[in-house]
Amino acid sequence: MKFVKNDQTAVFALGGLGEIGKNTYGVQFQDEIILIDAGIKFPEDELLGIDYVIPDYTYLIQNQDKIKGLFVTHGHEDHIGGIPYLLREINVPIYAGKLAIGLIRNKLDEHGLLRNAKLHTIQEEDVIKFRKTSISFFHTTHSIPDSYGVVVKTPPGNVVHTGDFKFDFTPVGEPANIAKMAEIGKEGVLCLLSDSTNSEIPGFTMSESVVADNINDIFARADGRLIFATFASNIYRLQQVVEAAVKHNRKVAVFGRSMETSIRIGQELGYIQAPKDTFIEANQINRLPANEVTILCTGSQGEPMAALSRIANGTHRQIQIIPGDTVIFSSSPIPGNTVSVSRTINKLYRAGAEVIHGRLSNIHTSGHGSQEEQKLMLRLIQPKYFMPIHGEYRMLKEHTKLAEACGVEPANSFIMDTGDVLALGKDNAMVAGKIPSGSIYVDGSGIGDIGNIVLRDRRILSEEGLVMVVVSINMKEFKIASGPDIISRGFVYMRESEDLINEAQKLVSNHLDKVMERRTTQWSEIKNEITDTIAPFLYEKTKRRPMVLPIIMEI
Amino acid sequence: MKFVKNDQTAVFALGGLGEIGKNTYGVQFQDEIILIDAGIKFPEDELLGIDYVIPDYTYLIQNQDKIKGLFVTHGHEDHIGGIPYLLREINVPIYAGKLAIGLIRNKLDEHGLLRNAKLHTIQEEDVIKFRKTSISFFHTTHSIPDSYGVVVKTPPGNVVHTGDFKFDFTPVGEPANIAKMAEIGKEGVLCLLSDSTNSEIPGFTMSESVVADNINDIFARADGRLIFATFASNIYRLQQVVEAAVKHNRKVAVFGRSMETSIRIGQELGYIQAPKDTFIEANQINRLPANEVTILCTGSQGEPMAALSRIANGTHRQIQIIPGDTVIFSSSPIPGNTVSVSRTINKLYRAGAEVIHGRLSNIHTSGHGSQEEQKLMLRLIQPKYFMPIHGEYRMLKEHTKLAEACGVEPANSFIMDTGDVLALGKDNAMVAGKIPSGSIYVDGSGIGDIGNIVLRDRRILSEEGLVMVVVSINMKEFKIASGPDIISRGFVYMRESEDLINEAQKLVSNHLDKVMERRTTQWSEIKNEITDTIAPFLYEKTKRRPMVLPIIMEI
Repeated sequence: MKFVKNDQTAVFALGGLGEIGKNTYGVQFQDEIILIDAGIKFPEDELLGIDYVIPDYTYLIQNQDKIKGLFVTHGHEDHIGGIPYLLREINVPIYAGKLAIGLIRNKLDEHGLLRNAKLHTIQEEDVIKFRKTSISFFHTTHSIPDSYGVVVKTPPGNVVHTGDFKFDFTPVGEPANIAKMAEIGKEGVLCLLSDSTNSEIPGFTMSESVVADNINDIFARADGRLIFATFASNIYRLQQVVEAAVKHNRKVAVFGRSMETSIRIGQELGYIQAPKDTFIEANQINRLPANEVTILCTGSQGEPMAALSRIANGTHRQIQIIPGDTVIFSSSPIPGNTVSVSRTINKLYRAGAEVIHGRLSNIHTSGHGSQEEQKLMLRLIQPKYFMPIHGEYRMLKEHTKLAEACGVEPANSFIMDTGDVLALGKDNAMVAGKIPSGSIYVDGSGIGDIGNIVLRDRRILSEEGLVMVVVSINMKEFKIASGPDIISRGFVYMRESEDLINEAQKLVSNHLDKVMERRTTQWSEIKNEITDTIAPFLYEKTKRRPMVLPIIMEI
Repeated sequence: MKFVKNDQTAVFALGGLGEIGKNTYGVQFQDEIILIDAGIKFPEDELLGIDYVIPDYTYLIQNQDKIKGLFVTHGHEDHIGGIPYLLREINVPIYAGKLAIGLIRNKLDEHGLLRNAKLHTIQEEDVIKFRKTSISFFHTTHSIPDSYGVVVKTPPGNVVHTGDFKFDFTPVGEPANIAKMAEIGKEGVLCLLSDSTNSEIPGFTMSESVVADNINDIFARADGRLIFATFASNIYRLQQVVEAAVKHNRKVAVFGRSMETSIRIGQELGYIQAPKDTFIEANQINRLPANEVTILCTGSQGEPMAALSRIANGTHRQIQIIPGDTVIFSSSPIPGNTVSVSRTINKLYRAGAEVIHGRLSNIHTSGHGSQEEQKLMLRLIQPKYFMPIHGEYRMLKEHTKLAEACGVEPANSFIMDTGDVLALGKDNAMVAGKIPSGSIYVDGSGIGDIGNIVLRDRRILSEEGLVMVVVSINMKEFKIASGPDIISRGFVYMRESEDLINEAQKLVSNHLDKVMERRTTQWSEIKNEITDTIAPFLYEKTKRRPMVLPIIMEI
């Protein structure tokens, strides 16, 4: 990295700064690169039809000989989802906690990449040593077991990456190792990269055990079926639901592919424990009394194809809502999903279910720490330099204010962009340059073949529709052989707009006659003239600007 | 209305039940129909490119001779936006408070419908008498002046419609007339139609005067420019901003068409009062010191074309963010706008502004009452029958629980759907039938010409794109004259996918040769065969299902 000095450590991100998701971070000292996480991002609305977004891996590919390993903080998609795409390019060794390794293994298997993968399960006390750098870990609390923060020791100083965290003092799993964090801080930390997700939320995030109590209460009160929707990735939550079901003498039926995977892996690795006959098949549900049934399903975000949405729509093959059913949304809607979640709730109510949802019912809590927890992390780690990560710009900004309140010099906080490189010396730090970075869109099996032009077209098509003008021209005789025909999609319903279409056709036809007289042989000119004739006419008549596509066939 | 008895009063809605918006209600006794409100609804995401949604007015058109008048509770779009579309069909007399009449007048003028409109300004004490029914009003508090509830006296009993309301005991304008509501209740109310918007929110909605205090504090503290974004329809809020500006010796520049209209009408009618030189033109902003400038603009919902969004994007012609600017979002994001609001906030921060937003800053409050206010209304009006209005199903449902808690018999609450008719006798009530109802989409200048087929096409086009196969066929000789050519939009970027396109073309070409040999003359058959050839191929190669459009030209 030419803009970083030989005695400096470079810190950069290929995702996760100024955005939520595709978390991918790098710490580089000379010829050793330590990668932390390789996530995907789920697309926002205007990325029409895109399945997900991965980072541009150019820098990593160019420097693959330097990469010592990928260290994964925990097993959530926004931290592991990019691994198959990265591994297709460079087969880097992967280090992660037991559960994350289990989830990564499953993912690589689906992508046919498992055979050559180099997977290493780490324990909290492990230290992975390379020639110039070494890596150690500290256990954190988050909404999935085996979550770790990472310490990268480099000659100029130690770089700490928190992963996703909260400080849950009464967690469902193991508590965070606060003592080790304090030790790390005492030893001296050059730079802290810390999770900013909830930096706008004052106070302390509610403990997962409060949720556990409320779930238990629901099980104790209910005498109909319980339909429980939550994030499949929240293994603790699944564990609680299964435990509550066992305690209250209910069986559990699992719906939705990601939920089935989580339950399977959770059981295989011992995170979800239940008597053998706890889990039942879909066809057994109706053989049991309602008060012995728990349905655990995907769809807590109102995703149209998920199990719960199909139940709400009445299109699920195995489950219909019956009076007495209680549906629990153990989740909070991600911004952008609010409307679809609300729609699902309305449909469930209409179908006769009782619905428990929303902040006031205390059946969900965030996996991320609020302001007081972020401050606690800052006080424990006591970094000289600070780089807020995991969040939109507004959250990063807010996090730097918290850092300042906790003793970090304002000039020592760096709000960086994806691709920016922070050069860290023993006593200095600056944003020194930029490496290639950006977003690659994955759509179906295509990686990166959808660009801005395709997306722009999709947007126009989606809002205004398309009008095609098709004409065959005999180019030897300068005569129209057939057409012009007008075909539209997504513009107006053609059977009901015959007059409009006929008029447009006549207009183009007359114009083309003149063009033929001019004996033009320039197709692009003819095409432009067709567009310039029909587009203003359609706008005047409909106040819409459909995409106009002239198609000329030469015969 | 054949399913309503001659001594019964019918209550129905053409919008506003199970949805937010297009509020349009009717109370009918024999041959007298009283309409209450005529709103539009802003489309949800999946209504691609639709500008807004109006109700199906069929029933009103068929029964226009019976309609005595349209009574408008207040001047918000979801209560008055449908008036131009209704008036094009039937020229019904309109009764409303002073401000609503001002806003309706402006709207009808824009649509060229003002000349023939019959507009009547009402006062709270007015009673409008028809042969069998009569209408009176009670003043409520809401986020716009001159908001009224409506009482329709009919022989079987009185029907009360609250309009939108909260109980603001320290409002910025006139307080609600609680005494009159109590009197109405004492006199006896057969049925209450009450605003359900905030029925899921416990407690009492914060007073507008708390917001006023906080706005004043911001003005007192700031020494840079203040950029204030809020709903143009919240006249009280505009009034407060203007008053605070005057008090703190600042001028006000107004941006955004709806904001300009509101300020103009608010001033004309005396709701917004300020010394003459308070308002300045855009070009005067830069001549004033920063601490003498207030910018009042649209865009608090992150609408892409609104003034604030263009300021945040750096594309506004007159305003660039400068350090020291404070942007205030005096609004809360409507579900569905959360992401775009957040994006705007991020951009403003990046541009160097301070941003004040969110619930914790107490610079916005809802115009709708929370649960305790809804209960107060129920206790004042004491209806025998209850029909929650203005809200999604979940809110209507919650509101019936509140009604039950306030003494309404559970069987006397009716959660109705748009089009349902509630038949009310002196001692009985039932949902007796259904009138025509539905949603009409307005897109550009087209009303109702966009239907489900066009929307389905837009959705497919937006997510998967389009592939056209164009071929000219000589139908006399059963020979391909030209093509097949493959053209795509929104599918893949063609220059980078030449192999895919060439392969697809070859596939279709080979297949068409066979079709020609069969000497088929059925175009639809040829088209289907083209689709059946190319669609599976494209899915296999890309895992996408674009719309396939075979275009055959006969020559």
